[in-house]
Amino acid sequence: GHLAMHNRERFEEEGVFVVNMMSSPGAGKTRLLERTLDDLASILNIAVITGDLQTDNDAQRLWGRGAQVVPVTTGTTCHLEADSVSRACEVIDLNPLDVLVIENVGNLVCPASFDLGEACRVVLMSTTEGEDKPLKYPPMFKLADVVIVTKTDLADAAGFDREKAVANIRSVTPQARLFELSAKSGEGLNDWYTLLLDSAPRHFAARESAATV
Amino acid sequence: GHLAMHNRERFEEEGVFVVNMMSSPGAGKTRLLERTLDDLASILNIAVITGDLQTDNDAQRLWGRGAQVVPVTTGTTCHLEADSVSRACEVIDLNPLDVLVIENVGNLVCPASFDLGEACRVVLMSTTEGEDKPLKYPPMFKLADVVIVTKTDLADAAGFDREKAVANIRSVTPQARLFELSAKSGEGLNDWYTLLLDSAPRHFAARESAATV
Repeated sequence: GHLAMHNRERFEEEGVFVVNMMSSPGAGKTRLLERTLDDLASILNIAVITGDLQTDNDAQRLWGRGAQVVPVTTGTTCHLEADSVSRACEVIDLNPLDVLVIENVGNLVCPASFDLGEACRVVLMSTTEGEDKPLKYPPMFKLADVVIVTKTDLADAAGFDREKAVANIRSVTPQARLFELSAKSGEGLNDWYTLLLDSAPRHFAARESAATV
Repeated sequence: GHLAMHNRERFEEEGVFVVNMMSSPGAGKTRLLERTLDDLASILNIAVITGDLQTDNDAQRLWGRGAQVVPVTTGTTCHLEADSVSRACEVIDLNPLDVLVIENVGNLVCPASFDLGEACRVVLMSTTEGEDKPLKYPPMFKLADVVIVTKTDLADAAGFDREKAVANIRSVTPQARLFELSAKSGEGLNDWYTLLLDSAPRHFAARESAATV
């Protein structure tokens, strides 16, 4: 609604590339962000907003990795909303920021319905969850800009059928970019990092030219 | 509310042991039920209601295993409610039934708030989801009668810290029974089967004596 639009305008003005990261609980959002900060925080100015019901455990895992991390607790609410993101942004200096990642509450249903003002919706599914998740939770996958298959290091042990999974993803969201990676082994991280690096400078350049007007 | 109470009264009158099975997407609810029906449907009269957003994929996986299976699609709703269970029960003959399993929508948040009239709340968490889930989704775990740690066959590959997981479960829900199993390898299934077998005859006996009054 109105608040999401307001967030989006503000993010665009400040030249920040904003990612709304969504998945089931345990698909590996925080693990991927730990690794991402370790690898990119020295070259990209990143901040993270973590959404959780009642703890700041995810934020604790991300602190001390070179990024500002702001935990938001939702109580019993199963998703983040634009106003809680807006309030979290009050303690973040958006201007020097390249990338803001919003780690949503672990939930493959409800967060799909709430626009936070992001530029990019990223949906994670792990190889251990089974190949059928896109078919069973289509609203979440339909709106994804990027689908990331995580925990590829466990694919064999889990008996993951990659072709079937890709076909299921493609049947629900033919347009989304598809990355396959393991934050543990490092396999496939380049696609994800390239997305952040390619998107951030574009915004950074826009900010620079806006400043010279 | 009222409808859940009505369901509960009806289940008790009919002597059916009703399980509300909840977890994240991909924690292994359907896989455990496949195996349960294969192993127990010849000695227990079981029916399953499967809750899904838009497909009857879970029901399809359970058909042909000796149990009546009734799919319920919720559209975009992230949980089952007592009235959809009540409507599903219209096509099930409850009287000869020993056990009714309600496989809820895969979601570790919202279904916790909706009483369906069950006798037993079972919450699954897989070894691949990480040890912290009870702390991060306490409403779901607090109300559990039984917590089942699934996919124990993947514990080593996933680097699952069992002691930490058990401590986390115990800190949120000291009273719940705790089972650890793999529907794939068969390890630990006995605890789960014993629960169903021990609970069902009690109800069956109650039904018998009611019939002789």
